[in-house]
Amino acid sequence: MTALTDLLAFQRETEALGQVMGRLGWDQETMMPRGASEQRAEEMAALEAVLHARRTDPRLGDWLAAADPETDAEEAQLREITRSYARNVRIPARLATELAALTSRAQGIWAEARAADDFAAFAPTLEQVVALKREEAALLADGDALYDALLQDYEPGASEADLAAMFDVMRPRLVALRDQILGADNAPALNGTFDEAGQLELSRKLALAFGYDLDTGRIDLAVHPFSSGSGADVRITTRVAPADPFNCFYSTIHEVGHATYEQAVDPAYRLTAIGRGASMGVHESQSRIYENQLGRSRAFSGWLYERMSETFGDMGLDGPDAFYRAVNRVAPGFIRTEADEVQYNLHIMMRFDLERALMSGDLPVVDLPDAWNARFASDFGVAVDKASNGVLQDVHWSVGLFGYFPTYALGNLYAGCLFEAMKTSVPGWEDALAQGDATPVTAWLRDALQVHGALRLPTDTIEAATGTAPAAEPLLGYLETKFADLYNL
Amino acid sequence: MTALTDLLAFQRETEALGQVMGRLGWDQETMMPRGASEQRAEEMAALEAVLHARRTDPRLGDWLAAADPETDAEEAQLREITRSYARNVRIPARLATELAALTSRAQGIWAEARAADDFAAFAPTLEQVVALKREEAALLADGDALYDALLQDYEPGASEADLAAMFDVMRPRLVALRDQILGADNAPALNGTFDEAGQLELSRKLALAFGYDLDTGRIDLAVHPFSSGSGADVRITTRVAPADPFNCFYSTIHEVGHATYEQAVDPAYRLTAIGRGASMGVHESQSRIYENQLGRSRAFSGWLYERMSETFGDMGLDGPDAFYRAVNRVAPGFIRTEADEVQYNLHIMMRFDLERALMSGDLPVVDLPDAWNARFASDFGVAVDKASNGVLQDVHWSVGLFGYFPTYALGNLYAGCLFEAMKTSVPGWEDALAQGDATPVTAWLRDALQVHGALRLPTDTIEAATGTAPAAEPLLGYLETKFADLYNL
Repeated sequence: MTALTDLLAFQRETEALGQVMGRLGWDQETMMPRGASEQRAEEMAALEAVLHARRTDPRLGDWLAAADPETDAEEAQLREITRSYARNVRIPARLATELAALTSRAQGIWAEARAADDFAAFAPTLEQVVALKREEAALLADGDALYDALLQDYEPGASEADLAAMFDVMRPRLVALRDQILGADNAPALNGTFDEAGQLELSRKLALAFGYDLDTGRIDLAVHPFSSGSGADVRITTRVAPADPFNCFYSTIHEVGHATYEQAVDPAYRLTAIGRGASMGVHESQSRIYENQLGRSRAFSGWLYERMSETFGDMGLDGPDAFYRAVNRVAPGFIRTEADEVQYNLHIMMRFDLERALMSGDLPVVDLPDAWNARFASDFGVAVDKASNGVLQDVHWSVGLFGYFPTYALGNLYAGCLFEAMKTSVPGWEDALAQGDATPVTAWLRDALQVHGALRLPTDTIEAATGTAPAAEPLLGYLETKFADLYNL
Repeated sequence: MTALTDLLAFQRETEALGQVMGRLGWDQETMMPRGASEQRAEEMAALEAVLHARRTDPRLGDWLAAADPETDAEEAQLREITRSYARNVRIPARLATELAALTSRAQGIWAEARAADDFAAFAPTLEQVVALKREEAALLADGDALYDALLQDYEPGASEADLAAMFDVMRPRLVALRDQILGADNAPALNGTFDEAGQLELSRKLALAFGYDLDTGRIDLAVHPFSSGSGADVRITTRVAPADPFNCFYSTIHEVGHATYEQAVDPAYRLTAIGRGASMGVHESQSRIYENQLGRSRAFSGWLYERMSETFGDMGLDGPDAFYRAVNRVAPGFIRTEADEVQYNLHIMMRFDLERALMSGDLPVVDLPDAWNARFASDFGVAVDKASNGVLQDVHWSVGLFGYFPTYALGNLYAGCLFEAMKTSVPGWEDALAQGDATPVTAWLRDALQVHGALRLPTDTIEAATGTAPAAEPLLGYLETKFADLYNL
């Protein structure tokens, strides 16, 4: 056996255990009895201790030094394992297991606090999470910038400075577009009765239309929609609100973007370090292009209009053009996951600034609600009415995901690039979408990007698919054209 | 830190990881997408390798030698950890992980073969399972009897000779009773329409009536009903057949017996080596006393009759006495899990003999269906019509559970002992049951037995609860009295 063979066999077991950890997380959000949360925290901490020991096993250092890769895929395996090893040896086992146990518990505490609109009930827990994540960031950064160190867990190669520069480009054009739209005539809104069973049935049809494979997946309900798992077991969740079927449908399409990416990765890469999406940003590019550029296109929304009319009857809308405007309605709103394409990235910018302040220590947790509310009023012109519409709306910070939010904006940017490239590469894509057939587009995405998993670094992954380096212009141009047309600007 | 403290801290993590393994098993049977089975096998094998390494960690030997227990509970912890350690150091990691991966896969192959009534599709896999289990048994037995070695995994202290002697006592009296009954007038049978939703709703009520705590549990559907997990996360499954609501209801009550046992164990024992049922036999005593001595009593069946009449309307039965006879109907049948109290142990005796022959090598897998069918014809006087009614009906052998079946019979025997003791200790138990209230009985079982978990060895557990050593007479006397009355013998 060579060092490389030994290394890959060892890594394969680690990946399998990582899948088990992901399954526990899925179970916790979908199936676990409420009273099991403390025990589950111990279970996850024990598994995290095992994973941490494997990810820092001294043999990894020896194997990595001796391994002699022959293919691009083997090079990529070594790159990914090296990054994981270099990262994890900086984190003591005690901290890794404490974080696993705490964030497992914190998620339940966050959910209860959110249901009760009670930030104070969550604050002491969030303080602990912030303290441990700052400790982790300091160890990872090793004297360099804290926030950059955290970013690498989600977007290898990203930096706070590059993200800030990207937001500086995006912000003025998005704000200008938003303000123009809000000064124009209102788009129509849905008005009808949308029973839960009908929503879930249509949601399932949408998942299939976008290529989700239920032989290696399943759909459940959860408070916060998510996709979970890699390879042959990739599950999604959605949610149902009786008055807001778009929430259900576009959450489903979004998560199907994530899930089909994982399902499409070359089976030869399964249970290896490159057998998953290239980064959170690239992942989000898939979920967002499915949800927005495809799902909210005039072509697909016409098909959805017909399906919803069959299922729910009159929706108070005057035909498919009005429906297309309703699907893309821009209006003030508190909730990031319900935000339109124009305002979505403004939500991200706000979280980017607040979480950097939490991590630097400039913003104590106790001051977070005021900071949130002040920033929201300034960016969106609306006073936050309750914590569940404000600082408690997102699960991320409860589970320690600091540095994750900006990958959503990166994903939007990447989606803009991919959409531009796809349009020139796939003739007839719009006609197919109008028939409810996303196959031409999803096949292009699969072959150009998804199948490669984490073979390449994030920006290289996008460039290999599109032929050019990622930039904000395609997204901004797409949004300005689309919404000028929708709102007669 | 003392050796004992270190040992118990280490064991706690092992127990937590063991719970994770149990959760994967549950998921596989209830939630997992079909296409994930190969990947799941790898995940379970990786986790089994971790568990095996922990259960054979050389530090265990040192800690066990140095530990100085002060309480009965600490003595019991050491007894259980010692047994596990002594067992597992005999099994090489390669065999442990091969068995985990194979039995994970085999379960799916069994389910498909059973659905197709195709033993040949399962035979090569079963041959592999038998081969690995024989290899394991030889290592565990270390020159002693193979089957006795396997029994210890499920029933510490049990022996093939004792079980054979027990069956020699039970068989003639059960056969005589069965033959008398089948020569008498038929009991009435249910005749009505029992929709799935109604069955599941009433099934849930039954679970609550028998004390199942849904705050630390949940109920799902599976091919084979089972209970899974310990401590704060104990889940059950049931099944629904439109024509046979008793299957659903008594499966649920049976699994609730298992699950409430786990839920009732002293919380101080959670995630320790004694934080679970004392053995499979003691476990089965709880499920069987819930299902039979309580659930099929005249008192409780009267209450169930009212509930079923409300839910399903006319059942073609002339009042609660006829219903009681229908609940306890003795008739020829192929399926162990659907067998009446009289014939159930005859099914076990047959499996006991067949699996001993498989383990000894006297019976090759290829000859198993013929052996099964010949034995069934001889014991039950009926020719098996298809494999799903015969050799493919039980999941156990597919997952390597050789030595498990006789614990069902032991459980019946223990249940007879417990029922006799309970009747003298709990005045008014029958009146309460007639009101659908099992609390007086379940509270007695909880305090006398369940709360202690694995503090004592199996037979000591029963003796501590009943005051006398386990014996077959209480069960046989109970059955003869009950069925003489039911059938006017």
